Amino acid sequence: MSYRTHHCGELRRKDVGTTVKLAGWIQKGRNLGGLTFVDLRDRYGITQLVFNMDTNPTLCEKARALGREFVVMAVGKVAERSNKNPDRPTGDIEIEVENLTVLNKSAVPPFTIEDETDGGEELRMKYRYLDLRRDPIQKNMLFRSKLALETRKYLDSVGFAEIETPFLIKSTPEGARDFVVPSRMNAGEFYALPQSPQTFKQLLMVSGLDRYFQIVKCFRDEDLRADRQPEFTQIDCEMAFVDREEVLNTFEDLTKHLFKATLDVDLADFPRMDYQEAVEKYGSDKPDLRFDLQIKPLNELVKNKGFVVFDKAEYVGGICVPAQAENWSNKDMKKLTEWVQRPQIGAAGLVYSKFQQDGSIKSTVSKFFTDDAQSEWLNHFGGEKGDVLLILAGKKDKTLKQLGELRLEMGRRLELMDSSEFKPLWVVDFPLLEWDDETERFYAMHHPFTAPTEEDREKMNYTDREVLKNLRANAYDLVINGAEIGGGSIRIHDRQLQQQNFKLLGFTDEEAESQFGFLMGAFEYGAPPHGGIAFGFDRLCAVMNHQNSIRDFIAFPKNNMGRDLMIDAPAPVDKEQLNELRLKLIPKKD
Amino acid sequence: MSYRTHHCGELRRKDVGTTVKLAGWIQKGRNLGGLTFVDLRDRYGITQLVFNMDTNPTLCEKARALGREFVVMAVGKVAERSNKNPDRPTGDIEIEVENLTVLNKSAVPPFTIEDETDGGEELRMKYRYLDLRRDPIQKNMLFRSKLALETRKYLDSVGFAEIETPFLIKSTPEGARDFVVPSRMNAGEFYALPQSPQTFKQLLMVSGLDRYFQIVKCFRDEDLRADRQPEFTQIDCEMAFVDREEVLNTFEDLTKHLFKATLDVDLADFPRMDYQEAVEKYGSDKPDLRFDLQIKPLNELVKNKGFVVFDKAEYVGGICVPAQAENWSNKDMKKLTEWVQRPQIGAAGLVYSKFQQDGSIKSTVSKFFTDDAQSEWLNHFGGEKGDVLLILAGKKDKTLKQLGELRLEMGRRLELMDSSEFKPLWVVDFPLLEWDDETERFYAMHHPFTAPTEEDREKMNYTDREVLKNLRANAYDLVINGAEIGGGSIRIHDRQLQQQNFKLLGFTDEEAESQFGFLMGAFEYGAPPHGGIAFGFDRLCAVMNHQNSIRDFIAFPKNNMGRDLMIDAPAPVDKEQLNELRLKLIPKKD
Repeated sequence: MSYRTHHCGELRRKDVGTTVKLAGWIQKGRNLGGLTFVDLRDRYGITQLVFNMDTNPTLCEKARALGREFVVMAVGKVAERSNKNPDRPTGDIEIEVENLTVLNKSAVPPFTIEDETDGGEELRMKYRYLDLRRDPIQKNMLFRSKLALETRKYLDSVGFAEIETPFLIKSTPEGARDFVVPSRMNAGEFYALPQSPQTFKQLLMVSGLDRYFQIVKCFRDEDLRADRQPEFTQIDCEMAFVDREEVLNTFEDLTKHLFKATLDVDLADFPRMDYQEAVEKYGSDKPDLRFDLQIKPLNELVKNKGFVVFDKAEYVGGICVPAQAENWSNKDMKKLTEWVQRPQIGAAGLVYSKFQQDGSIKSTVSKFFTDDAQSEWLNHFGGEKGDVLLILAGKKDKTLKQLGELRLEMGRRLELMDSSEFKPLWVVDFPLLEWDDETERFYAMHHPFTAPTEEDREKMNYTDREVLKNLRANAYDLVINGAEIGGGSIRIHDRQLQQQNFKLLGFTDEEAESQFGFLMGAFEYGAPPHGGIAFGFDRLCAVMNHQNSIRDFIAFPKNNMGRDLMIDAPAPVDKEQLNELRLKLIPKKD
Repeated sequence: MSYRTHHCGELRRKDVGTTVKLAGWIQKGRNLGGLTFVDLRDRYGITQLVFNMDTNPTLCEKARALGREFVVMAVGKVAERSNKNPDRPTGDIEIEVENLTVLNKSAVPPFTIEDETDGGEELRMKYRYLDLRRDPIQKNMLFRSKLALETRKYLDSVGFAEIETPFLIKSTPEGARDFVVPSRMNAGEFYALPQSPQTFKQLLMVSGLDRYFQIVKCFRDEDLRADRQPEFTQIDCEMAFVDREEVLNTFEDLTKHLFKATLDVDLADFPRMDYQEAVEKYGSDKPDLRFDLQIKPLNELVKNKGFVVFDKAEYVGGICVPAQAENWSNKDMKKLTEWVQRPQIGAAGLVYSKFQQDGSIKSTVSKFFTDDAQSEWLNHFGGEKGDVLLILAGKKDKTLKQLGELRLEMGRRLELMDSSEFKPLWVVDFPLLEWDDETERFYAMHHPFTAPTEEDREKMNYTDREVLKNLRANAYDLVINGAEIGGGSIRIHDRQLQQQNFKLLGFTDEEAESQFGFLMGAFEYGAPPHGGIAFGFDRLCAVMNHQNSIRDFIAFPKNNMGRDLMIDAPAPVDKEQLNELRLKLIPKKD
């Protein structure tokens, strides 16, 4: 027995007169006098079924008894609709039903299965299989499937082979926390789930597989900030015998192809910006270039004029917000000051100068700076009457970051980000090392396998902390609309250099050997120069659809506590199961 | 700087005269008088480099100093070879090298990087990155990549969407043992790694996603028999609104497509055989149809003739081996008897009748059966002079299994399996339930979500063990050349029926609810009829290449103890890491 001859998005006027069988879910029903109309839904669309009380009252009664989300099979004849629905591809026709079978009933869903649902986040997660029936979420899933396939087809067409790397690997204390997996056959020992296939893809290059990719799940046991998931998907890539240029061009081409193939969007060539410039102009290593509002330093203009806050600050800088001087009240300015003082931003205070249309200036620092002085600042920004200068001061790194946040907030409030636009960007020349004051050591900004730039390689021999802080890595990030979409680097392929890097990162020789000896060993057997990149696939899906939440692109996401509310995981396991693993639970301390 | 203008498999006679740059590994070198030839290898092929001692002695000396597996970059002119190599696509040309750069040296590899290597299994696993340089293994990896892509392209073309299901799910005691993953954020609780995405793909059908697939890693913590891996890959598929016919046709078409697209092999329509027939004729639910040698029952011919072994046996049956009567000595027969008595086979003994060309019969049971009686057996098999009947007796199930093993052994010894042939087969109508004498309960032969056939559904209400044993499932396996390639079923989509099945499997209502409540809950909200299949992707790769070992199709496999010898995992973890998980190791008892 076949359940259907067509799906619910398929029938058109040309099919009028043919007898068809459809199956799907009841979206809704309407009774109009002697006629009952029922919308039948499946993944492909909605088709209207019609029942006539005059010609077949029994069948019509049966149709009237159908509830929302009932699963039915209907046989009938395709007829032209008198009252066409131009918003629906099947809107020209309807099915005059002759036979109706209820395949399964449905209880009343806990929220409405509509584009805009009344279900809250928790409820939608618990009944995810119902949330997934909603058209916007289904579209996201189908987009994701298509994007993955296009990625694979494109990478295959330029010589990449998809090679699966293992999920049960070894835990390393470096980087984020691993999820571990106790081994039963080797009780007392543990596998770890990969945070990325980094070392394996490098070994594939040592193997001569030349061009590798994989769309692959990765795992990080982190405290989940908003919109992070403990398991996430990467497009992971690596190439042998390449320099940075070739990597960037290859993946710029991939990105352009994906936008064209899935969205029919033509992206222009991606600009490049070095890390230093990104931080100084946008206060971020992932600038959103959909709007300008650049940060400028004011040190030279404001220092040693008697305002102690500026004088003692390492850095003073600001942004010039256009045409808001007359719009923003004192109360608005007070609120904005409070906004930059929130712990998430952490500025000490906000200095502003409002340049009124009448030539006057309203400023928090008029006591210290003349109107002329402030006008000079405005000129520095290329601003004009009506603009507002927002100025922060303090440690350079932190202040730039705060200004970056302020810039984004202004972008959002003033709706400066065109929500239909895409602005990709390569950020290059990241620092190799990041100093951490707390643990008093360097950490790898990207990861310990990143090579320094050719020019800075010699600096690896220095011990001076300031020199090392400025050591540039041959690393790059792909940023689109202010979101980090991908990141990668040219890798170290020389044992000595790798050892040196581990030493800079505070590894003893023994630690380096026990954790990454297999990789350094591999470098002794003819490792080619190589480099690669990994794209955050969940984020890419969201950004390409101008959506903020990656959860809506993941079929079965977890909540902020790492719980799957639908299946109720994680969950306790039997004591015997733990015994087999030679494990015991330490009782909870209350 | 670019490392190469071409790869090592690319240059042809038409390129003669052009200057090129190549990069790769030194395969080997030969010094012939004034000329030195070096084979340069990469993933794409081998190109010969030539150095002339007369014209450039310095460069030639440099080339002579190169060791195997050194990584080099060579610039030179493409020249036509006087001594062509027709076995190599680049065999018409060589590169007259003008410039040579050593990009990386190599220590002497622990085994030879050749098609046939001198490296043992352990050594090859430890240095897997070198083993992966060997051409047969690289070909396997590239085949796998191609097969995966063709699978995706085909399934996409017939409306399947690839949807990722979670890896951090919930442990269920049913089926094989789970790998568990302790949760830190929910300390004391555990995730499990999926043995398959079974429940999730069913939920996607409830969601109306209609046609799902995924090429996905699955995990089983089993004691590893030969050629099993704790992590393995499935092509996992599910369809809504289908009956068995539609599933079988869809995946028969997929299989045919894959053989055509990757091997250029046209497969004929797949025969179907029910489970009962497979077991009775081939002693196996995965018959190798590349050779005949069918099992036949002999009960009616041999019972109650005074031979107590046959008389007391539930089942007597045999196979007729052609044309070996004169070849097999008494010693051979003794050895064969010992073979069936090995614990892996477990037969009590072997009865045989050799039908000599001169008409005489040599048999172990001549005392009990006349030549005429034995000739009647031979006729029963359609055999002829020169053939040998091999007969086993005992419990029916076990004896058929033993005969199945014996049949396969004869197939191997007499080379009856054509190693270039593919014989696919659908085995259908498996039993729903398997009784286990030890635990005194039924287990699901496929899994607890498998529906009974329409005809047998009513038998679910019985309690009689014999009736339940014969209850047929709407389940099917795809078998190729005696290997199980895929298996699936039409699923239960009705809450009551699912509950009934759990009850037959010995679940209390509470157990069923706590483990699979989310699925039964989903069935209440309009679950459509659905079914699917999963292919063992590693095995499919191996069978399509007529190879026995799945390890050679896995980039980084584990050994029989579940260890990755290259990275040395699993491994101990820090005590602090365990503390965070509220876990303590139980000390080993010696």
